[in-house]
Amino acid sequence: MNQQPIGVFDSGIGGLTVVRELMHLLPHEDIVYFGDTARVPYGTKSEKVIRNFAVEDTLFLRKQGVKMVVVACNTVSAVALGLLEEKFALPLVGVVKPGAAEAARRTRNKKVGVIGTPRTVSSGIYEREIRTLDHTVQVFSKACPLFVPIVEEGWEEKEATLLVAREYMEVIKAMGVDTLVLGCTHYPLLSNALTQVMGRGVQLVNSGAAAATAVQTLLTENAMGNSQACAGALKVFISDVPYHFQLLAERLLGREVKDITRVDLEAIDLGGYE
Amino acid sequence: MNQQPIGVFDSGIGGLTVVRELMHLLPHEDIVYFGDTARVPYGTKSEKVIRNFAVEDTLFLRKQGVKMVVVACNTVSAVALGLLEEKFALPLVGVVKPGAAEAARRTRNKKVGVIGTPRTVSSGIYEREIRTLDHTVQVFSKACPLFVPIVEEGWEEKEATLLVAREYMEVIKAMGVDTLVLGCTHYPLLSNALTQVMGRGVQLVNSGAAAATAVQTLLTENAMGNSQACAGALKVFISDVPYHFQLLAERLLGREVKDITRVDLEAIDLGGYE
Repeated sequence: MNQQPIGVFDSGIGGLTVVRELMHLLPHEDIVYFGDTARVPYGTKSEKVIRNFAVEDTLFLRKQGVKMVVVACNTVSAVALGLLEEKFALPLVGVVKPGAAEAARRTRNKKVGVIGTPRTVSSGIYEREIRTLDHTVQVFSKACPLFVPIVEEGWEEKEATLLVAREYMEVIKAMGVDTLVLGCTHYPLLSNALTQVMGRGVQLVNSGAAAATAVQTLLTENAMGNSQACAGALKVFISDVPYHFQLLAERLLGREVKDITRVDLEAIDLGGYE
Repeated sequence: MNQQPIGVFDSGIGGLTVVRELMHLLPHEDIVYFGDTARVPYGTKSEKVIRNFAVEDTLFLRKQGVKMVVVACNTVSAVALGLLEEKFALPLVGVVKPGAAEAARRTRNKKVGVIGTPRTVSSGIYEREIRTLDHTVQVFSKACPLFVPIVEEGWEEKEATLLVAREYMEVIKAMGVDTLVLGCTHYPLLSNALTQVMGRGVQLVNSGAAAATAVQTLLTENAMGNSQACAGALKVFISDVPYHFQLLAERLLGREVKDITRVDLEAIDLGGYE
């Protein structure tokens, strides 16, 4: 048993969809979230810079006394998870491996689609992870750069969004996939549109939900769960307050966000590695 | 008469639509373009950082021996043009003032729409400039964050784009504007879609074309034009090579781009101010 909070970080606030899954699955856990909104997006930065940011983000969460860290960012999971595992004694869970594992497990016809940002897709990380687990699976990937701004505009239910989704999904749909990995934390908000476009026969894999299940397993196996009787608390730290932040945060999280603090990482002594 | 090239810079490659207008209007001028693709977008950075970048970009162009500098970036024009004018003896032309002036001149019913990135729109710069010239003009602005990724996807002619444009233009159209300022260098590629949505009665003002006219006036008045018999040459420098760069650059420019060099600003001695 461990009453310390679970730490979650992301380059921005998309990772709140992962928090949503954690709160659903593990309602008694306290959670500390850090969104590096001052430096978002990480995807356009060099790998070296992304690794430095990832270390700083993890140091910040460790300073908040977390018992483990969820890397709720596909870019960081792809580029820096190995480094974080080397540097930190804290247990770490990323979003890529759990999402890839669930897709490999769920596909029946061995044809999986993966959608994400251009950086995640061009890294080929989902394809590698899926094919490591089952080399008979064919993976078809597609970068969908319009999906993040569509979610940030709150346009999930617009007719225009369906057309954009049809445009992006055309090739993947033609390949006959039976499973589609949502390889970006914003995309679960587009589940309705994607189901409508792909058809009910295609299962959507939410990497964030898969990561939450991985966290549950880790906590259970190591007897690290929080047994408090009341519902867990969520504390949100962000490094900048973007336009319409509160509104977007609450749409991603699916509930009210009360405890928000702006922090300047450069002004904090983050300490060194343990 | 002055045979030196015209310098043009932008945070990315959108400014190539301004170069396109310059080449059309001043076919005998040589042009040196710098696109700071390693640090794009500027719009999400602090004003201090944007000003530093703008100074570095201008120093780089001066080092290429340009006779003047066109700031082909709405964000920099809004935030840093005054500083550049203080620091540099080179003649400078931005995109905001010429675009605002043309809109103020062309509107008949004194109702002007302005579209741009969230940063440009929230700065209120077009509104201020237009109303300084004619305070009887009403300005209605709308940020359109999906338009840049749509252009970068090459989706100008897609049905989805028309729907997105209808969504964004609904409010501005309802205001009965007779003039619409394209306050972002990517937007001229959406002229067809915007005309279709707004109707033929609404005139589109291309800020880049207005800036090119301002450059022509400046060169004529100061007898700084290039009188060479042959067509001018275009040299393109970029600080990083983005995905699909060549293709996108040629669509923005409207012709082939041959002479492209990658430069690392940090590795160059840019010199000081004059």
